[in-house]
Amino acid sequence: MTATLEATADPYHSRVAAEWEAASRVDPVVWSDDRSGGPLDLERLAAYEQDGFHLASQLFTASETALLLDEAQRLAAEAQPGPGVIIEPGSQAVRSLFRLHETSEVFRNVARDPRLLEVARQLLGGEVYVHQSRINFKPAFDGKEFFWHSDFETWHVEDGMPRMRAVSVSFFLTPSTEFNGPLLLVPGSHHTYIRCVGATPENHHEKSLKKQEYGVPSPEAMRMLVDNGGMVAAKGPAGSAVFFECNTMHGSAGNLSPWPRTNFFIVYNSVDNALAEPFGGTPSRPAFLGERDPQPIGTWG
Amino acid sequence: MTATLEATADPYHSRVAAEWEAASRVDPVVWSDDRSGGPLDLERLAAYEQDGFHLASQLFTASETALLLDEAQRLAAEAQPGPGVIIEPGSQAVRSLFRLHETSEVFRNVARDPRLLEVARQLLGGEVYVHQSRINFKPAFDGKEFFWHSDFETWHVEDGMPRMRAVSVSFFLTPSTEFNGPLLLVPGSHHTYIRCVGATPENHHEKSLKKQEYGVPSPEAMRMLVDNGGMVAAKGPAGSAVFFECNTMHGSAGNLSPWPRTNFFIVYNSVDNALAEPFGGTPSRPAFLGERDPQPIGTWG
Repeated sequence: MTATLEATADPYHSRVAAEWEAASRVDPVVWSDDRSGGPLDLERLAAYEQDGFHLASQLFTASETALLLDEAQRLAAEAQPGPGVIIEPGSQAVRSLFRLHETSEVFRNVARDPRLLEVARQLLGGEVYVHQSRINFKPAFDGKEFFWHSDFETWHVEDGMPRMRAVSVSFFLTPSTEFNGPLLLVPGSHHTYIRCVGATPENHHEKSLKKQEYGVPSPEAMRMLVDNGGMVAAKGPAGSAVFFECNTMHGSAGNLSPWPRTNFFIVYNSVDNALAEPFGGTPSRPAFLGERDPQPIGTWG
Repeated sequence: MTATLEATADPYHSRVAAEWEAASRVDPVVWSDDRSGGPLDLERLAAYEQDGFHLASQLFTASETALLLDEAQRLAAEAQPGPGVIIEPGSQAVRSLFRLHETSEVFRNVARDPRLLEVARQLLGGEVYVHQSRINFKPAFDGKEFFWHSDFETWHVEDGMPRMRAVSVSFFLTPSTEFNGPLLLVPGSHHTYIRCVGATPENHHEKSLKKQEYGVPSPEAMRMLVDNGGMVAAKGPAGSAVFFECNTMHGSAGNLSPWPRTNFFIVYNSVDNALAEPFGGTPSRPAFLGERDPQPIGTWG
């Protein structure tokens, strides 16, 4: 698979049709041949394969997590406007800070913590690198929603990720409850690739980080996926983490509660799945959104 | 209590201070002297008094409720733009239809159904009339949030409702789940009156029906109320109803799910609590928002 194939030969082409389409996934979900070679047991691997996510409750201790939240808040307080610093629409609050595995020793250590890393290596079948990392701050009272999307659709079209061989981890720095806009997932949706309608404008990402307009599944596609798989909210105490497959449809509602919802989001991609040219034909997005110089985590100093 | 008192003599004055204030409620919560004279037993009455709401699961049968939903959808499809017809921001979808107890025989019959009416009479201690009624349509995928508010604060300031002697009923025409933006309530919040900051512009209601900007509690006030009472989501099958006291702080998140959330909302007010001039000094709002010609339900033909 290279970007030189014609668009229609790309099994994951998107943003071209007048009507949405549902296509079959052509990649494995679990890439390891040796299924007993990692932290997830056979039952959990089978559940991940079926559902497209794995929720690990209290993977880190409360005291470890409290230190991470302190660091996240310190980084937000010190953040200066610039690439990789996203401000909440309608306020001056920091919504997202990107590339934490490069800019923060603390979060770099989370990225290579075996409790996350070894799961990623097991799921992706070998060595991995960090495609993207960020902290998402969903402020109390007015944290905005993220509409439904498949990360892979965007990463393939706009960043050039060839195949579905990446896993995202949302690590809860604060509790996730039904009231503070938890991550919502559609079980089983990763088996289907939804082609989205509409061409992608250049520099679209500057806006889409605040509000999505492209790469959005149609209502009919969402109804089909939810009719098949239902919906699940990833809830749990701080220190929990949800691993979800790069094509799992997800979103999150707004946060009306008096409690912020903060998480550390990290995407592991297989070193054999490094970015090519964007499959949608637009220029590639900035590196804080999609790393173009992969450093296998095993080589980190 | 009349509108001729000075603002500061009004125990429920609001929108005047530079800082928010929490004041004590000066009215009973349950107004009946005879506590055994209605459908709610002593335990349920005590819970309503403490929490400020009562959730009645499956109060109407599934087949009764299906007919009501059909009627609601018919009314929305036939609605013409005009007073009492509110369109969703950013789309042409009907968000709310008002004054259903006057415009629809079907919903007029719901308003006087003993399963709702006798509870209202018991809570308010005597005869009641309909202060406001409406159907709220929260569309699938993009139904917008309603921020936290006390209905009484607005009805007192902008409509002239003298005292806290009204009860709202949200009747579920569709199931309410954690995923479709259910009504969120703060238990015990009805015991405290939150004075909101900021003067009220005239004709504010034309905008506030779409997005609230005035009569909004401060973050500090909300934190205090939620620290004291927590939060509850009113969830249940279609045909359920939640009765909530007019000063109970409530709101609802957006609806990201593929399922619309539709409810019939009806406010019963005591005939001894009919509207005076608005306590905030602005002209009174249109009658579809606050009935100024009370017709005791017992006199309905």
